[in-house]
Amino acid sequence: MKFARLIHMGKTLTGVAADGAIQVISGDMYTEWEYTGEVLAEEEVQLLAPVIPEKILGIGANYVSSEEELPEQIPDLPVFFFKPSSSVIGPDENIQIPEGIEEVKFESELAVIIGKEMKNVPKEEVLDYVFGYTIGNDVTAPQFFHEAGHWTLGKSFDTFTPLGPYIETELDPYEVYVKAEVNGEEKQNSPTSLMIVPLAEMVSYLSKVMTLKPGDCILTGSPLGAYLIKSDDVIVCKIDEIGMLSNKMVKSSISVGN
Amino acid sequence: MKFARLIHMGKTLTGVAADGAIQVISGDMYTEWEYTGEVLAEEEVQLLAPVIPEKILGIGANYVSSEEELPEQIPDLPVFFFKPSSSVIGPDENIQIPEGIEEVKFESELAVIIGKEMKNVPKEEVLDYVFGYTIGNDVTAPQFFHEAGHWTLGKSFDTFTPLGPYIETELDPYEVYVKAEVNGEEKQNSPTSLMIVPLAEMVSYLSKVMTLKPGDCILTGSPLGAYLIKSDDVIVCKIDEIGMLSNKMVKSSISVGN
Repeated sequence: MKFARLIHMGKTLTGVAADGAIQVISGDMYTEWEYTGEVLAEEEVQLLAPVIPEKILGIGANYVSSEEELPEQIPDLPVFFFKPSSSVIGPDENIQIPEGIEEVKFESELAVIIGKEMKNVPKEEVLDYVFGYTIGNDVTAPQFFHEAGHWTLGKSFDTFTPLGPYIETELDPYEVYVKAEVNGEEKQNSPTSLMIVPLAEMVSYLSKVMTLKPGDCILTGSPLGAYLIKSDDVIVCKIDEIGMLSNKMVKSSISVGN
Repeated sequence: MKFARLIHMGKTLTGVAADGAIQVISGDMYTEWEYTGEVLAEEEVQLLAPVIPEKILGIGANYVSSEEELPEQIPDLPVFFFKPSSSVIGPDENIQIPEGIEEVKFESELAVIIGKEMKNVPKEEVLDYVFGYTIGNDVTAPQFFHEAGHWTLGKSFDTFTPLGPYIETELDPYEVYVKAEVNGEEKQNSPTSLMIVPLAEMVSYLSKVMTLKPGDCILTGSPLGAYLIKSDDVIVCKIDEIGMLSNKMVKSSISVGN
């Protein structure tokens, strides 16, 4: 089942998407909801990011190029980082390149959406707490990484976290390919089996540190092939079972610094 | 004016604190509110963190020991980091030391609470967007810092961001002393004039990267003197014009790792 958020006639709605139509629902997507009876054609609505997470976490360099390169042991202390919810945009919105730099990096990723509050959950039980999966683009300006290793600013600009188009609740996250196309040309295409820290281990680890809540989003890392793109480029992140997340790069007029 | 959040008879309330009493209010603290007429003695209620921010940002190593040490120019790219809202606790709640380590660091800080949505605000106008100030303890487990410089995990454990006791709206943030006592002994005491990146510059910088929203919290750095403390220690963070934020250290039974 594919959940979507959308704007129609000035109202923000939630619905279930299938075959080009969206059936509007009411209630809480994570717990109890029902169909309102309203059905909209997808082409007459604007899709939004399917969730505005309270927390967004990413993981650093989490893909290898082939199964032979997978390490025997996963790292004791993976690299995690936060992105703010203020950086979230939806399908077809523009990604803004800050004034003063010419390029930013795209990173197509499988994004886990948490469905139930979870703390200290063993990896065997993680999938019971997952609501579904969407596509995330972990846009990054490495020019704003601090030389001492802090990625915060380079990950946090407004528009730097496109999410969408839907949350698919019936996905096997171990059986999908994470893809990206720039201006129509394929640049990333890896199965999630090439993750160094697998999804369940990643979410379990985080749940031992912090309470995860419904709607929280974990970006599971980007396949090899991500690179810097510039104004007017169009980046499409794709997971066939979920859909396509297309965003165009534009220049922002806001310059950073004191 | 001192705003407080509290629990009384099982209900979460907001109020204005003065002279040991809290006058309950209704409405939105940041925009329009009114007194309900209910007045509670502070000793009969449990104070909560005065806000659960959507975003919490901290800044790395932001104090010098004396005015002579202040650099002539502030850094082009300060070290910023996020803490999750799931790490927030209130006055008198326990700070939990993760299983497997014995000590964590306290860091007493002046915390800025944003009052109005802000993006790309020049430093001269920053204070117009500030709602008020509270005290934050940026509890940190450096044992969970990644060797490549990422602080995310070490800053993010549940209970690692005590905030409170009140949000004081009438403070001059450049004229206060940030203090800490461990087991009754003073360990930190510095004026905010010893900040390397001053408050307005810090918030302005962040507002150029990301949209800040009402309730967002910016921890402005901790004076020299912070160190690692252990189970049963009591840490009191203090800014005389705001109040005291006291928390006891205890051991958690949750161990981190795969």
